[in-house]
Amino acid sequence: MASNSDNVGNVTKFPKVQGGGSLILAWQIKNKHVLVVGGGEVAAGRILNVLNADAKVTVVSPSSGLNPEVRYRITNQEITHVDRVFQPSDLETLPPSNGPPDMVLVAVDDPAASTQIWKLCKERRIPANIADVPPECDFYFGSIHRDGPLQIMVSTNGKGPRLAASIRKWIGNQLPTGVGDAIERIGELRAKLRKVAPNPEEGPKRMRWMIRVSDVYSWDEMCGLTGEDMDNLLTFYPSNEVPHLDLLKAMRGGKSAEDIDIFDGSFGFSVVA
Amino acid sequence: MASNSDNVGNVTKFPKVQGGGSLILAWQIKNKHVLVVGGGEVAAGRILNVLNADAKVTVVSPSSGLNPEVRYRITNQEITHVDRVFQPSDLETLPPSNGPPDMVLVAVDDPAASTQIWKLCKERRIPANIADVPPECDFYFGSIHRDGPLQIMVSTNGKGPRLAASIRKWIGNQLPTGVGDAIERIGELRAKLRKVAPNPEEGPKRMRWMIRVSDVYSWDEMCGLTGEDMDNLLTFYPSNEVPHLDLLKAMRGGKSAEDIDIFDGSFGFSVVA
Repeated sequence: MASNSDNVGNVTKFPKVQGGGSLILAWQIKNKHVLVVGGGEVAAGRILNVLNADAKVTVVSPSSGLNPEVRYRITNQEITHVDRVFQPSDLETLPPSNGPPDMVLVAVDDPAASTQIWKLCKERRIPANIADVPPECDFYFGSIHRDGPLQIMVSTNGKGPRLAASIRKWIGNQLPTGVGDAIERIGELRAKLRKVAPNPEEGPKRMRWMIRVSDVYSWDEMCGLTGEDMDNLLTFYPSNEVPHLDLLKAMRGGKSAEDIDIFDGSFGFSVVA
Repeated sequence: MASNSDNVGNVTKFPKVQGGGSLILAWQIKNKHVLVVGGGEVAAGRILNVLNADAKVTVVSPSSGLNPEVRYRITNQEITHVDRVFQPSDLETLPPSNGPPDMVLVAVDDPAASTQIWKLCKERRIPANIADVPPECDFYFGSIHRDGPLQIMVSTNGKGPRLAASIRKWIGNQLPTGVGDAIERIGELRAKLRKVAPNPEEGPKRMRWMIRVSDVYSWDEMCGLTGEDMDNLLTFYPSNEVPHLDLLKAMRGGKSAEDIDIFDGSFGFSVVA
């Protein structure tokens, strides 16, 4: 059964497992119900995290324990507030859905109460995070850089949380301006392409062309593309071509590709194989 | 009830919610059981992802459907193999634990079977990802840069997966060499500090000193610190000081801080407030 055909000498051609990491995931929480227990500063950070991912949030906390940011989000109707301490029935019927929450985030200064909530969540298989109690967490939060559709998470796996924040800020400063917009535009290009060529049979051709676009232009070059450039780019799809960037730029202001001398050596096409 | 005290004019001082993102999490899967259904190329990638996070993995797939990498990991006893197609009882008694899996990853070319597994997982509240079927996913995977304890995940929230991979590679190339080692060393410093000053009452002092260390040295400077530098650094903890980097470097080779003239202007201390 054991075959060594995939080993060359003692060296495998497959990636070596590097244990000790986390499984970093993009959790889908849009329109899901998140229960936040506690209303202090840590809770405020958690609430922003889940609102940025379009969750519906209910905060259970006595009004006296609300920090100004949490109070602002309640007043602004961004979240639902239940004005009392946590009770176990919150894991069964939680407003506004009056069903069980899909995720529970606890940030209260009461280790005994926290542990009880953690155990109740585990019995019900509800993913939960008890702030500052790593063994009572299904998941940790990390340091996130956000620019429109682009999210970059930096984790040091608990070795240096402040370092993680520094590295995240450094990455944010290194990235070219407009990278979030560029990604948004690529998403729009993909959506427009589906309108221009809606035939399901063209799926593979559409996919090959999009991949070619990503390969021909570097991602930092794409930051400079305008909406007009994208529309012009789409005109090359029927002939299965991707024009050089300089040609796209020369087309700005309503010029058609035919009007531009592409034989001076600076322009050209990349034809999809 | 509505108070505008937290608004200045119409501008709030609190971060504005930026919807449309994902909730990016570091899922804790160490020693948890992950069921992978399918043994092809996508499954191979998923398996590496969860092994890097120290999960116990069981692959359910007929031997005929195993790709070389998955076969290698079975032969190498990195994962457990069940040689048949999925059956619903796999969600109740899965070897090696013979209990239900903590997570299910499906990568088979059979939409009907995939959807059935997804539904069974949802009934049992088991987090699941059905490859290439976004609506049947509790979470998505992203493009990850890994360097020891450092993990950086890039997500474009589905707008441009190839772009995400390019940005991830670019970030990897921008980072200074040795950043993973530096983070490891900061983790060791923290662990050593707890041995040098184990008194629980010193917790706040330890934490303030560690924060000061992170503030005085930039994270790229820390990439250059050696094990000897870390040991020398620890000798400054009792007096609650953090020496300048040049002093640490001058101490290399067994010199004590007293032997070095710190009054020439290039050295000095940062005393923790």
